[in-house]
Amino acid sequence: MKVDVVPVAGAAAPPLADNTGVAVIDVLRATSTIITAIANGCIGLLPVGSPATARKEADRLAEKKPLLGGERRGLKIQGFDLGNNPTEYTPQTVAGRTIIFCTTNGTRALLRAAEACLILVTAFLNVSAVVDRISQETDLDWMIFCAGSRARFSWEDFTCAGIILQELELKEVTMEMGDGARAARELVRKTAGRGPGLLLGSHASYLRGLGLGGGVDFCASLDVFNLVPTYRGGWILPPHSIQYETGV
Amino acid sequence: MKVDVVPVAGAAAPPLADNTGVAVIDVLRATSTIITAIANGCIGLLPVGSPATARKEADRLAEKKPLLGGERRGLKIQGFDLGNNPTEYTPQTVAGRTIIFCTTNGTRALLRAAEACLILVTAFLNVSAVVDRISQETDLDWMIFCAGSRARFSWEDFTCAGIILQELELKEVTMEMGDGARAARELVRKTAGRGPGLLLGSHASYLRGLGLGGGVDFCASLDVFNLVPTYRGGWILPPHSIQYETGV
Repeated sequence: MKVDVVPVAGAAAPPLADNTGVAVIDVLRATSTIITAIANGCIGLLPVGSPATARKEADRLAEKKPLLGGERRGLKIQGFDLGNNPTEYTPQTVAGRTIIFCTTNGTRALLRAAEACLILVTAFLNVSAVVDRISQETDLDWMIFCAGSRARFSWEDFTCAGIILQELELKEVTMEMGDGARAARELVRKTAGRGPGLLLGSHASYLRGLGLGGGVDFCASLDVFNLVPTYRGGWILPPHSIQYETGV
Repeated sequence: MKVDVVPVAGAAAPPLADNTGVAVIDVLRATSTIITAIANGCIGLLPVGSPATARKEADRLAEKKPLLGGERRGLKIQGFDLGNNPTEYTPQTVAGRTIIFCTTNGTRALLRAAEACLILVTAFLNVSAVVDRISQETDLDWMIFCAGSRARFSWEDFTCAGIILQELELKEVTMEMGDGARAARELVRKTAGRGPGLLLGSHASYLRGLGLGGGVDFCASLDVFNLVPTYRGGWILPPHSIQYETGV
């Protein structure tokens, strides 16, 4: 299978070939939050591009009593129920609920992946589960979409992609790596590996400056959840075939 | 000064802050060709976005008798005088001439940099000259635009960016590196350095497959020219302050 990494998919991504799966990564924090929400019993998230669309969808779906979640510049959107911090998405808050979800970079990267035949919501929190899923789907080619941050490269997204490639190699999955995949893998091979250096990107510092350090530390945790939400038909849904844990 | 790297600027780039210089890199092959043309006496290149625009500009500038140069999918455009192979841009052909220049990724990256206050045309061929120039302009912040290849990450562009960062560190230039800069520098620090591994990206293989290996090998050469063309007022022009060599 062919594998490549798009370093800033929140800004732009190449057209997808047929028969391609996409793993979408926005470690800080959209995909980390989505994975946590699904793990804690949320029955589906609807990613939308703007707060205005989120409110319109909330009206349309009023009988489901959806929660509104998301951020602009790292902070909760006015009038929303939840921000973009995974530690807010507790079982008490999200179990059995649907969530309309609006973030900047992560949502854009998900929407850019919409044509793919399988879309995996990916972060450090579930990286090994994603590797397992990709290694079961080697009839597809794979693109790893790093969301980036406001059209800039994000260290933590690219490093997460590198870990996926490294683990696929360890499982002896035969891959033809594009240049982006090769760079991400080399970067992980040669840097601090899985130590705390992984998450020392500039967006982590920005969020810590907003007093959100607890959520950042949680997002830096590897393999907290053994589940992979998928994005299909406009919704992010739980993986029915995998029993999921509750955490946080 | 702040420094960051945009990994695929041919597809998208963040907005430029005031007081920012940009180094634009498209090793294979637009910036390598431009540097060679200027070194060999070309008096100016006009980058344009499409072959149709190139022909229109050729009519408008008819009294300058401009040459038409450029590529689509690696090959010379029908009816053009020159392709995108630096070895075509000899002194015999380009000295004293203007060139209307149309490539895909490199041209787009240049046009995206157009608002910057200083734009340096950069490749392996002149990397140390670019480092010298940046180290003389530390009152600016710097963005390094890697063109990429058809909206995908290019190994050689990112590696060239990493060499710039490594050389700036060796000169003890004080930098605040963004995540993209940090990744490019780490990649160069930890990979084959300046050996033949520099140009093992997939686009090099594609061009070799088209029989263009000689040009690829030339583009992989470090510091052949001690000059930095700049892009200003729509034109790429020679650096009047630096005496330039003739080569190829």
